[in-house]
Formats: sequence, structure tokens, C-alpha cells
Amino acid sequence: MDIARRKTRVVSIGQKKIGGDNPVLVQSMCNTDTKDVSATVKQIHELQKHGCEMVRVAVLNASAAKKLGEIKRRIQIPLIADIHFDYQLALEAIEQGVDKIRINPGNIGSEEKVRKVVDAAKRRRIPIRIGVNSGSIEKRILAKHRDEVTPAAMAESALSHVKILEDLQFRDIVISLKAADVNRTIAAYQLMAKKVDYPLHLGVTEAGTKWLGTIKSAIGIGSLLNQGIGDTIRVSLTDSPIEEVKVAWEILKDLGLRKRGRMLISCPTCGRTQIDLIPLAKKVEEATAHIEKPITIAVMGCVVNGPGEAKEADIGITGGKGVGMIFKKGKVERVVREDTLLDELMKEIDKL
Amino acid sequence: MDIARRKTRVVSIGQKKIGGDNPVLVQSMCNTDTKDVSATVKQIHELQKHGCEMVRVAVLNASAAKKLGEIKRRIQIPLIADIHFDYQLALEAIEQGVDKIRINPGNIGSEEKVRKVVDAAKRRRIPIRIGVNSGSIEKRILAKHRDEVTPAAMAESALSHVKILEDLQFRDIVISLKAADVNRTIAAYQLMAKKVDYPLHLGVTEAGTKWLGTIKSAIGIGSLLNQGIGDTIRVSLTDSPIEEVKVAWEILKDLGLRKRGRMLISCPTCGRTQIDLIPLAKKVEEATAHIEKPITIAVMGCVVNGPGEAKEADIGITGGKGVGMIFKKGKVERVVREDTLLDELMKEIDKL
Repeated sequence: MDIARRKTRVVSIGQKKIGGDNPVLVQSMCNTDTKDVSATVKQIHELQKHGCEMVRVAVLNASAAKKLGEIKRRIQIPLIADIHFDYQLALEAIEQGVDKIRINPGNIGSEEKVRKVVDAAKRRRIPIRIGVNSGSIEKRILAKHRDEVTPAAMAESALSHVKILEDLQFRDIVISLKAADVNRTIAAYQLMAKKVDYPLHLGVTEAGTKWLGTIKSAIGIGSLLNQGIGDTIRVSLTDSPIEEVKVAWEILKDLGLRKRGRMLISCPTCGRTQIDLIPLAKKVEEATAHIEKPITIAVMGCVVNGPGEAKEADIGITGGKGVGMIFKKGKVERVVREDTLLDELMKEIDKL
Repeated sequence: MDIARRKTRVVSIGQKKIGGDNPVLVQSMCNTDTKDVSATVKQIHELQKHGCEMVRVAVLNASAAKKLGEIKRRIQIPLIADIHFDYQLALEAIEQGVDKIRINPGNIGSEEKVRKVVDAAKRRRIPIRIGVNSGSIEKRILAKHRDEVTPAAMAESALSHVKILEDLQFRDIVISLKAADVNRTIAAYQLMAKKVDYPLHLGVTEAGTKWLGTIKSAIGIGSLLNQGIGDTIRVSLTDSPIEEVKVAWEILKDLGLRKRGRMLISCPTCGRTQIDLIPLAKKVEEATAHIEKPITIAVMGCVVNGPGEAKEADIGITGGKGVGMIFKKGKVERVVREDTLLDELMKEIDKL
């Protein structure tokens, strides 16, 4: 079932476009020291291999900023510089040729400094992401909201940054409103989606370790995407950014927003299961992880319900009492020995 | 941020109540052979230990049905019998004292058989869950929907079962509308939530293996709960039901619907991180998994943003360049050696 996506302004980030009818893109962030060019480039190549379509790096100081050009030349996906407060780092990053910067204009300082950054971004035609984070809302805005980090306070903070840019006739804007609380994150983005037509970059911040952060991100990012909100996403995990990219893709695939590699359908085991399903499903998951072409594969526990319940699968297997079955689009194709099920499945997949 | 929940009719399942203002309950399903009482009871005890609040077992035949009473006597949480088609199994399950049955009245057969089951359920005051599954919608309903399993077709199927029960003045009804497609699942429940006030049992079916199924379930169940829909949930995984219960709890905790044990906040590592965060966060996750009292713990990567961004945490740690810090509610409490951070954190948690 397709999602009706919110109509947003198109913004270009290097060769990629977000907003409008462009696909929702997967973003991640390096956890290397940006100054260490070879480590950073290596991680970006690895991220790209797993489907990362834009990559962000933290720019903490001038020596990191000065390496951005070299990093940029050695990678194939758009490079985003993440900068806090320091307008000179922003200017240097833009000069080095990054494809987008993340900086909050309200935190840069004098009007003069903001104008310099905006002028530089205009000249290079690169967008600015305003990244509001629930942990760092301006005190004057919080005061208006009883010192509570409400979705309204987050949206107000974002809009105040937006206004600074719009007053300078700058509209290549992307916005994020990340909170560690899932409900607050969802509500903040919903509010923002009603107020502006800029593309939104989705994420839940400080989501946690691989397992906990995956659950939190899937709820937050997934809810918003299902409602048509979101133009790029980043899953934040306290783990390798490769894991972030993998989870991001699964979220997009589950919601039918993107296709990449295999979709796996497998039933929970129950008293009806006539086959050792858990290890078999795991093996299928692993054996098909490398597939890049979209294909839906089902691994079902019982012959009676399996093929019928997994009608949507391009191919599937089920079994019971020593016998295995290969089915396609709900119809049983042939019966095989249970111990050859995985091999036979892989042969069929190769044929497809 | 709190969720405004949909108002639903209260339904009792043994000692537990769902609907109304009652908490959203965690359900799982045994994957043992129900006839094997000791294996089933053992798994239920294990499930309960991990927070399972109601448990379902598949009742495939009379010998399984006859064991339900014995299982029931040896467990402490409500027992639900999952039955397909066979009214005699339903009657036997009710006779054995189960707390709820899952059966679709439209699939039972003659009016006479339906009436017998409903009368038995009335006598024992147990509810019936109507469980519509996208893979098994009635042909006559599909025909009306161009043979497409749309959310409307799923809702129509559920309503046709509801009507059978209501015509017999039976209203202790719970409804589920599970699809393997996340968007379809969400849309079907949203539609149903507008049509009836019966409590809804949420789940995405055939969600997949532990990792894939967790993501899919978190999106589907999480989206609906965030919108106030859902009175009980089951995460379906092709894995141990214990894993289902763990994921279910994290979803409920992330959405602020329930409290149990630790909530972990940890930032993604970035170029700013001054500490070996990934293994530290994992260690904290493991060391605190046993805690049952609600507590929010933060593991942050940098001293500058860490304590401030994790203001909501009851307790947190951060570090940088050999030094660790313990903070509470955003305020640094004390500085410790980085290599003693975990121990010091655990001591502080014990004190709380």
C-alpha cells in the first residue's frame, strides 16, 4: 500500500535531490575523527556500499574543516558538514566544497557573520540544514513555553532559524527536529510539516544502543514516514554507522517507500509449526543479505496456511514432517526434501 | 509526552482488564506443542518473568484442547486459546477454563455451532477475539474489493464477524487486523478504530526474523499506539517468544505508555565523541537489563553536550580524555576515572 507523501520544495544536495517526488534518502554520520582523512574516507566507502546516500561529518575545528575538500574528492556521495556555532568553520567547509552544511543560523552570532555564511552558501548553491535538538532549545523560547521542551517550542526554535535565512532570501533549507522522546519527536515534525514546505530530515536523537535504538528509531521515523512526512532519514545508534544504514533501509522498505534487496516474510512459530523454522529463517536472512535486486521471500511454518498467507511473496518455502515445498505467488511449485530446502530456494532465487 | 488514547469498551481477560483507561498489555504466543504441558508451562513461566501479561497457545486438536485446564492451573497469567474453524475445540477450550478464545465466528459453520460457542463464552464470561489476517479474507468480501486485500476489505471482514456476535447479544469482543504489510496494517486498524469501540489487539503478522521483525513491528505497532490506538499488543517474530515480549516492552516504554526497568538514552558516536562509547553503552545496557524499577539512564559521548542533552535522565555518564563524569538530571555530580565509570554508575543506580 502506497503512502501519500507530503508535498515539499525540492532541494539539491550535490547530485542528489530531496523533496518533491524524489525518493526518501538514507543518511548517516561518520564516527571517525574527521581530520583523519583515510579513516573517514574508508568509512564513507563502506557506508555507501551498504546504501548510505549522503554522509555527514562533524567539523569540530579548523584542522578538520581544512580536510573536507580532500574527503570530498575521494568519495562519491554528497558530503555534509556538521557545525556548531562557529561561522568560520562554516565558511571554510563551504570553501572546501561540501554539499550541504548543518548549522543553526540563530546560534552563529552577529548578523554580519550569518550573512557571510548565507552568502557563501548561495554562491555555492548548497543548502543549509537547521537542526533543532530537544536538548538545546534557546532559553528565551523555553521561557515562553514554561521551560518545557514541547513540540511547539521545538517548532518555534526551528521557525526562528528559518526566519533568519528567509530574511536573507535564502530558501535552500532542510529542517530536523530531533528529540530523545519518540512522541515529542513525532509531534514536533507533525507540527512543522503544517507550517513550512521545506523538506524534513527525520531522526530520533540519542536513540540508544543497536537494539534499543533500532526500536525507538523505527517507531519515530516509521510513524512519520507512514504519515507522508520526511524526505531524508537518519537512524541514530550508539553503534557502527553501517548498522544505522541497514536499519534505515529496512524502515523504508517496510513502508514501501524504497526497494533494495530482499524483503523477508516469515511467520512467528506457533504450535502449528511443523518445521524448525527459527534457524531456517535466520539462514535465509543471511544467505539473501547480499541480494541487491528487490525480491520478496517468505519462510513459512506450515503447509496449510503458509503458501496462502504469503501470496505476496515472489518465492517462498514451507515444510512439514520431512517434506519441503517451494511456492511462488502463493502456488506450490514443487516438493523437495526438507534438508535441501535452503539450497533449492537459493537456486530458484538465482533463476528469478 | 503523553498519548491521548482512544476510548474503548473494557473487556476482562481473567484477572486482567483491557480497554478503557487500563494499560496496554503485552501478549505473546507459545511456540511449544500445546499437548506438551510441561514444556508449555515452562515457557509461559519464562514469558511471565520477562513481562508477558497474557499468553496464547495454538489449539490444533482435541488432545491439545484437553490439556488447557492443566496448563491454566499451573500458570499465573491469563490463557488464550487460538482456534481455527473447529467449534468443538472452542467448546472444549472454554470448558477447560481458558480466559479468552481467538476464533472467527464467520468461519465456525452453522448458526447452531456459533450459538453454542457464544453461549459457552457468555456462561464463562470470557471474551472472543476476532482475528482477521490479510492472508485469509473471505472470498465473497475480496470479490467486492476487486480481489484486493485492502484495509477496507479487512475491516469489512472483521465487521462481518462482529455482527454475528452482536446479533447474539455478545459484546465481549477484541479485534485484530494483522497484515504482513505495515502500511496496510496501520490503515486497517485506523479504519476499525473509527467504526467500533471494542478494544484492539495490535500486531503485524509474518513480520520476520528477530532483527527484521523487530523493525517492522516497531513501525506498525508503534505508529498505531502513538495515535492512541491499541489495547494489547503482540510482536510477532520468527524467534523465541521471549524476544517478542522484550521488544513489546521497549515499544510501550518508548511511547511512555508503560514503565518497566531501565530506559537507556545514548548518543550516536560522532567525531565529537571523546570516549569509547559503543562498548560502554552495550555494557550499561547489559548491566542494567535486570532492573525492574523504572529508571532513565544516559550514556553520552562528550562532556560539552552530554549532561545538557540528557537532562531528562535520572542518572547518566559521560567522559573524555581519561576522565568520567556522573551526572543526575543534567547536573554533574562528580568526576571519576574513566575506567571506573561503569562501576561507579552501578553504585549510584543501587543507591537510587
